[in-house]
Amino acid sequence: MIHKLFGCCLSIGLWTGVVAAASPAEVSRTHFDQHGPAILAEFAELLKIPNVASDLPGVTANARWIEQAFEARGAEIEVVSQEGVPPVVWGRLPAPGATRTLGIYVHYDGQPVDPSQWSQSPWEPTLYTRSLEDGGKPRAFPAAGDSIDPEWRIYGRGTSDDRAPLIAWLAAIDALKAAGIERKANLVFLFEGEEEAGSDHLDVYMEQLGDRLRADLWLIFDGPAHQTRRPQLVFGVRGYTGIDITVYGAARYLHSGHYGNWAPNPGLRLAHLLASCKDAEGDVQIEGWNVGGKPPVTDWKNPPGFEAGLREELGVARSEGDNAPYFERMQLPSFNVRGMQAAGVGDKARNVIATEATASIDIRLVEGNDPHEMLDLVEAHVRKQGYHVLHREPTAEERRKHPLIAKVVRRPGYRAVRTSAEQPLTRWLIETVKGFQPDLVLTPTLGGSLPLYLFEDRLKAPIVIVPIANHDNNQHAPDENLRLGNLVYGIELAATLVAAD
Amino acid sequence: MIHKLFGCCLSIGLWTGVVAAASPAEVSRTHFDQHGPAILAEFAELLKIPNVASDLPGVTANARWIEQAFEARGAEIEVVSQEGVPPVVWGRLPAPGATRTLGIYVHYDGQPVDPSQWSQSPWEPTLYTRSLEDGGKPRAFPAAGDSIDPEWRIYGRGTSDDRAPLIAWLAAIDALKAAGIERKANLVFLFEGEEEAGSDHLDVYMEQLGDRLRADLWLIFDGPAHQTRRPQLVFGVRGYTGIDITVYGAARYLHSGHYGNWAPNPGLRLAHLLASCKDAEGDVQIEGWNVGGKPPVTDWKNPPGFEAGLREELGVARSEGDNAPYFERMQLPSFNVRGMQAAGVGDKARNVIATEATASIDIRLVEGNDPHEMLDLVEAHVRKQGYHVLHREPTAEERRKHPLIAKVVRRPGYRAVRTSAEQPLTRWLIETVKGFQPDLVLTPTLGGSLPLYLFEDRLKAPIVIVPIANHDNNQHAPDENLRLGNLVYGIELAATLVAAD
Repeated sequence: MIHKLFGCCLSIGLWTGVVAAASPAEVSRTHFDQHGPAILAEFAELLKIPNVASDLPGVTANARWIEQAFEARGAEIEVVSQEGVPPVVWGRLPAPGATRTLGIYVHYDGQPVDPSQWSQSPWEPTLYTRSLEDGGKPRAFPAAGDSIDPEWRIYGRGTSDDRAPLIAWLAAIDALKAAGIERKANLVFLFEGEEEAGSDHLDVYMEQLGDRLRADLWLIFDGPAHQTRRPQLVFGVRGYTGIDITVYGAARYLHSGHYGNWAPNPGLRLAHLLASCKDAEGDVQIEGWNVGGKPPVTDWKNPPGFEAGLREELGVARSEGDNAPYFERMQLPSFNVRGMQAAGVGDKARNVIATEATASIDIRLVEGNDPHEMLDLVEAHVRKQGYHVLHREPTAEERRKHPLIAKVVRRPGYRAVRTSAEQPLTRWLIETVKGFQPDLVLTPTLGGSLPLYLFEDRLKAPIVIVPIANHDNNQHAPDENLRLGNLVYGIELAATLVAAD
Repeated sequence: MIHKLFGCCLSIGLWTGVVAAASPAEVSRTHFDQHGPAILAEFAELLKIPNVASDLPGVTANARWIEQAFEARGAEIEVVSQEGVPPVVWGRLPAPGATRTLGIYVHYDGQPVDPSQWSQSPWEPTLYTRSLEDGGKPRAFPAAGDSIDPEWRIYGRGTSDDRAPLIAWLAAIDALKAAGIERKANLVFLFEGEEEAGSDHLDVYMEQLGDRLRADLWLIFDGPAHQTRRPQLVFGVRGYTGIDITVYGAARYLHSGHYGNWAPNPGLRLAHLLASCKDAEGDVQIEGWNVGGKPPVTDWKNPPGFEAGLREELGVARSEGDNAPYFERMQLPSFNVRGMQAAGVGDKARNVIATEATASIDIRLVEGNDPHEMLDLVEAHVRKQGYHVLHREPTAEERRKHPLIAKVVRRPGYRAVRTSAEQPLTRWLIETVKGFQPDLVLTPTLGGSLPLYLFEDRLKAPIVIVPIANHDNNQHAPDENLRLGNLVYGIELAATLVAAD
């Protein structure tokens, strides 16, 4: 049923195209039925251009391609550059008599690739009959007149994260024009080229663009649909920070026979320290941890059966907090051991006592958490466990003096953002999407982090994330892909938003 | 003072050589004063032959060199081979009218080398004026008639671990002969060529040699002198076993944003599990851990100030068990985290929740501990923490079913050995060595492990370890070295043992 929601869109298109008062979503489907092969060919043309942020010629070529494609649809467009960093593409597409302006954010850069791990070149977009995990086989791109299966997937870097929304917007503009439907909202485009590299220059670009970014509502076209495959609107993101903690043993590697049971073991010390931070059920024990954040939103429910299905999919018998609801957990600041190490394990293990052990921690913040204050809480906790805390390597003298020493390295961070779903424009957005997607999931916050605080600070407008990609798109991984049913949803969504009353 | 003990031996030699009733130790020093350059030249000849056990031509060439050198001193000698593995060198040197037979064990193979980490080729023995850490400079080998500083060090693989005792024995036999002192004990030699590779064939060689290994006391010439630089006799070794423990999270790597605080974190699970095994003071909490071993010997005291000095040297403010005595700790079975890992740390950290985390544990056993039983105790403890324990990877179905799963990999092991110091021959040994080394340290057990159980099982004789190398010899590491004062001690010791009443 859920699956069908996206899956059925093409066949519906077969008959909706002939109805006089066709909706924007309906004309989008008709348009895709008629011009799908051309849309995919245009998409493939873009996907062939490498888009890793560190490859400046590559990302610049992406920007130029986008400039030309949106200009051809009548948009005012400009590639805005700073020396030595990926450009942003800014654009404007006014609608006569519009009463609102929608800001549309997409990033056109992608994660770095290791081609040896891909089933084909990440820059050779390839069509498969289904997902590879599901036994999909490669097939030729369709010719004009061929029908397209929504379960087909296009593989390549940046298919879903995040170049698909660009194609969706181009096709939506074309679809509305072909059907003679007027746009009712002005559009302002901001297409970024270094999101996957940390958005280090977005702030400066925003300052540079100033009023040209003015919009009533910013829509972030990024991220995946809900894990149930239902479309979702997401009203926030968690903030991000991190800390690396290193604890010490003797000043040189020791023979574990001659010194085991006598010399302190840094791996064991780290185990005790981490165990003190978070209990076995996954609840953080750091004093003040859950104090600063705004209370969890508990009246937004997960779709029924969602967590059970997710546990099944992920091979998890019990999730943290004794199977507490996913939404609830996403609204608490997290403390995640993203890595820990002391010497080597398995075939790389030697009979030693290591000199140090390190844990790398990432911390996801909720609204109300300040990144610096959260790191201060971690440091205070480490001190409370008896550690002498340093922000550099200990000296030989310090090692002799303090039984317990921890070096902490604080990572940069930024705060969470949450947009109220109760403002007129967000209410309009929800109703508009629900109009053609009654199963829409409203998600209070994305578990992941995006620097949306920049939008909030600079652009002074509500921000909502409108993901279109399938949840199993292999985001950031090899064999990234986009399910074509999801591309169609993106076209429907774009057309609906710009043409709705 | 302690330092002087070895340091003074050469100058004493200058006048003891002219006394009529010179002791074996005294004639050894005289001999070294007169023939030191030739002894070093002979040692260098041996050290130039690579001796890593996996290099069969190399270890065989070592065996042949040893055969020739001992034959030249009148020993009956034989290189005993098995197909494809390093040979052992067996030998016999009878003494007319002897009332005891001493078994002499030395291993002539060395640890593998990474030449890039050495200050010079590990196979190019090089003389330094002191240790490198102490600012030593390379110098030419001495010519005949040159005097030799006991602080000089000879660098090269296998200098101290463990080819030095071979040279000590050769020089001792020469020294006694030159001084006209009769040997009073028969000698049986067993020189092994794959100790550093695990002594996998020693058992078979022992069986093959049978009665030809009969001796009243076996002396293991291996290991370092006491950390105070005083000579020591060691009456036991800890046994060895190990276990790798892997705990699990979700079946695939997860985005730490979307799943952090919801999906179980295997790093944190491992931290809790390890912390439950051993408390923060380093005392093992596994039920039954300290039950099976024989009670610690508490009446053998460390030399005064030993632990404080060791802590200072190693940069340890407080040793495990709240600064409990070293000897006491060595007589308890150890549980040492030799390595632990979950995903990556520092620059290799990614924003993920890993699928698994592993700790590699080595366990040092005391007399009375059975390796299998100790591993059973660890497994029982893991189960007691709620884990479903497997000896293989969990299936997808098991991951969905059991909240906590641990995979354990049991490493092979062998038991500890301890020889009573209260038998006639061990009493004789202690008195004989004390006769020329009044500062002798009696050590109940080496912290490290050697498969001495093979000697105990097969050879049915007391076994004592008689180390001669300096404690800071960089054993198993790059820049292995032998302090020449310690070589002289080895010659004195060998001569004294074979010539004593």
